[in-house]
Amino acid sequence: MYTTLKEACFEANRQLPKLGLVLFTFGNVSAVDRDRAVFAIKPSGVPYDDLKPDDIVVCDYEGRVVEGALRPSSDTKTHALLYKTWADIGGITHTHSTYAVAWAQAGLDIPIFGTTHADHTHHDIPCAPTLTDEMIQGDYEHETGHQIVNFFTDRQLSHKTVEMVLLQHHGPFTWGDTAEKSVYNAAVLEEIARMAYLTLQLNADTARIKDTLRLKHYERKHGKDAYYGQGC
Amino acid sequence: MYTTLKEACFEANRQLPKLGLVLFTFGNVSAVDRDRAVFAIKPSGVPYDDLKPDDIVVCDYEGRVVEGALRPSSDTKTHALLYKTWADIGGITHTHSTYAVAWAQAGLDIPIFGTTHADHTHHDIPCAPTLTDEMIQGDYEHETGHQIVNFFTDRQLSHKTVEMVLLQHHGPFTWGDTAEKSVYNAAVLEEIARMAYLTLQLNADTARIKDTLRLKHYERKHGKDAYYGQGC
Amino acid sequence: MYTTLKEACFEANRQLPKLGLVLFTFGNVSAVDRDRAVFAIKPSGVPYDDLKPDDIVVCDYEGRVVEGALRPSSDTKTHALLYKTWADIGGITHTHSTYAVAWAQAGLDIPIFGTTHADHTHHDIPCAPTLTDEMIQGDYEHETGHQIVNFFTDRQLSHKTVEMVLLQHHGPFTWGDTAEKSVYNAAVLEEIARMAYLTLQLNADTARIKDTLRLKHYERKHGKDAYYGQGC
Amino acid sequence: MYTTLKEACFEANRQLPKLGLVLFTFGNVSAVDRDRAVFAIKPSGVPYDDLKPDDIVVCDYEGRVVEGALRPSSDTKTHALLYKTWADIGGITHTHSTYAVAWAQAGLDIPIFGTTHADHTHHDIPCAPTLTDEMIQGDYEHETGHQIVNFFTDRQLSHKTVEMVLLQHHGPFTWGDTAEKSVYNAAVLEEIARMAYLTLQLNADTARIKDTLRLKHYERKHGKDAYYGQGC
Repeated sequence: MYTTLKEACFEANRQLPKLGLVLFTFGNVSAVDRDRAVFAIKPSGVPYDDLKPDDIVVCDYEGRVVEGALRPSSDTKTHALLYKTWADIGGITHTHSTYAVAWAQAGLDIPIFGTTHADHTHHDIPCAPTLTDEMIQGDYEHETGHQIVNFFTDRQLSHKTVEMVLLQHHGPFTWGDTAEKSVYNAAVLEEIARMAYLTLQLNADTARIKDTLRLKHYERKHGKDAYYGQGC
Repeated sequence: MYTTLKEACFEANRQLPKLGLVLFTFGNVSAVDRDRAVFAIKPSGVPYDDLKPDDIVVCDYEGRVVEGALRPSSDTKTHALLYKTWADIGGITHTHSTYAVAWAQAGLDIPIFGTTHADHTHHDIPCAPTLTDEMIQGDYEHETGHQIVNFFTDRQLSHKTVEMVLLQHHGPFTWGDTAEKSVYNAAVLEEIARMAYLTLQLNADTARIKDTLRLKHYERKHGKDAYYGQGC
Repeated sequence: MYTTLKEACFEANRQLPKLGLVLFTFGNVSAVDRDRAVFAIKPSGVPYDDLKPDDIVVCDYEGRVVEGALRPSSDTKTHALLYKTWADIGGITHTHSTYAVAWAQAGLDIPIFGTTHADHTHHDIPCAPTLTDEMIQGDYEHETGHQIVNFFTDRQLSHKTVEMVLLQHHGPFTWGDTAEKSVYNAAVLEEIARMAYLTLQLNADTARIKDTLRLKHYERKHGKDAYYGQGC
Repeated sequence: MYTTLKEACFEANRQLPKLGLVLFTFGNVSAVDRDRAVFAIKPSGVPYDDLKPDDIVVCDYEGRVVEGALRPSSDTKTHALLYKTWADIGGITHTHSTYAVAWAQAGLDIPIFGTTHADHTHHDIPCAPTLTDEMIQGDYEHETGHQIVNFFTDRQLSHKTVEMVLLQHHGPFTWGDTAEKSVYNAAVLEEIARMAYLTLQLNADTARIKDTLRLKHYERKHGKDAYYGQGC
């Protein structure tokens, strides 16, 4: 019944090891079907090499299984909360990619140092603080979603212009119009994280990219007069 | 006679180069058969590409060869001592993987900075001190096993919750319920070591993950109410 | 009509992912035909795996499309200006390769520390400053070309002996007698950038290679009595 | 006439890109035939992918071509001098591998921090100083050989127990009983260089491995009672 959705989710998950973003089972991608108000997500703990389209689990926005024989990702409720709150996103990726995790563990926003970063967002990549003890000991994965959403509200960030976040002492979540785009963002984030790391090792006092260049690169790719790509 | 055991040992050894954990012959995996009180181990100095299941050597818990035409790994007596002492482990892996060795050479425990680490153990990865001169000049590999076991006792660590150790100025040993699991742990350790390295380069004063989050991640995967994976 | 030129451009572009110099579409190579005063360049935003020779776009020295159904690289006007100004170059490569970008983001010239560097140029790899706000808000990609050319003039550098530049907060441009050679230079630059990075981490006070050795290595490969290679 | 020698040289050269030790043509391996007092070496500037056994050049101990249509490596005279002086080596490898070059550029010996290092030599990896201006401006590659040999004499190092050297501001040379062994040593050196780099980043005050452990590991692999490997 959800064949196309599960295929899209399967294909997006398969990109993670190809892009070097996961070791073993340390990641998951989901894809949403807005018409039916369900999303497909990787089953928990299944190695990417063994994964088949039929293994993909379909859940509703409360994270309850709608279709599938396997247990969904342990992070399912985080995906559910994000889909429920941000009605215009189509896919979500969570990884433990190395450099993004390093920044998350260090508890630091990734400063916007260059055009590689500005091509994708004109903000620092934000690092949300660790959840409170109450949140962790409560409905943890659900609260993780709340933490991300509330953090974006507090920081006055739009999830449309910043499609990625670090969770302190944990790692990255990314999203986008499709599951495939959320995986793309996960790979971009890892590369931005690596470049910023190396930049600070070379010069701990590196200044951020200046405003005009920052906005120029973002706008030429995402603005209303964008001229990057084939316009489709 | 030990065909299945040797096959399991062979397959686990073959994972080491695939996972990027060894250069040339710098590593070895063993698998134990508790019923027969023997373990199978890689022969010494044989390149992984040339290795055949039949080359695997079978030894008893004193490290004496029971079956096999080749000389077993020079680290055999370390494996033997660990199997003899810890009756509930099924496999052991020793590598010289890059980041784990760097921490071992620096003589430092790997602090628990994030959930990637806490998903696998809720302790820092401990670094056991170099053996005494007497131990090194005595039955060195046997004493290496003693050093690991005694270190765990002194530190009041359980080998069931911490399935890995660094030996100062040497490198990592990992173990698990099976040989395959011990290789998995070797790969996880290398990634944890790399992430912690990068984290400290970004922020030398990084605090450890807080207790609630540390325990939450360990328990959701290993606790009695674990909900990670497919429960099998 | 431009089949050979487009093929050369296509083949050179395909080298970028093989050499590990690009993630997704973050780079472009062009090849010039001096007789016809046109150059072929990668279309904007097309993944390297999907790229076909027929997708390559042909432009004149003002960056106007002469042949091709797709929109050319957003950096086309930078290429155009460089071809127009430096009449003896045959190909240009732009990437966001990791270590070169790190140096560009840090805003630092890459000091000439060894023979790997001196085999290719006897100067530090220069880092041109970010464009002024007026340049960025004007005809940005065209002005980027001007910035490179003027910077070489101000620094009294020859584009024949230094076939590469970093643009601050952005990344590298390289060029050469052919498109293929410009890709070669992009790969060499990335490796030089990585070696220099590691060198400074080991010893922040590392001195540059001394003059005699610097010139010896450059001359034995590029001087009039060069004896490196097969002389063809 | 030198078919076997050229094949051995060819095969050893082909290992360099497989082991990740060279970019483009930045390296060369030679193999000696002591009975005929000649050695085979890679031709200069030929990409490894294009290399055929027949392209290999045979030279005498003065570096003069004995057989072969192509020009030999520009480093041929360094190889010649080493073969002439050290009558018991069988092969030589020169690379610009990344971490070894970083240490050479920094002008530092690689301290012996662990057993990975001690398994191969019980000394720090020595870094020979840059040649004098007279040597560089004279018969440079010949003098490079002299510099290595004299440096070993001055430091009272044996080329049988230390089969590798760094040349300041340049990179590594390694040697061994065979060409294949010299390539093995080049790969080992690169890994030791990388591990030592990471170790110092973690702890700048790391102490060397203690003497008993250093000698134990070297002797169990290379001593008269060695028990590592299969004894053949």
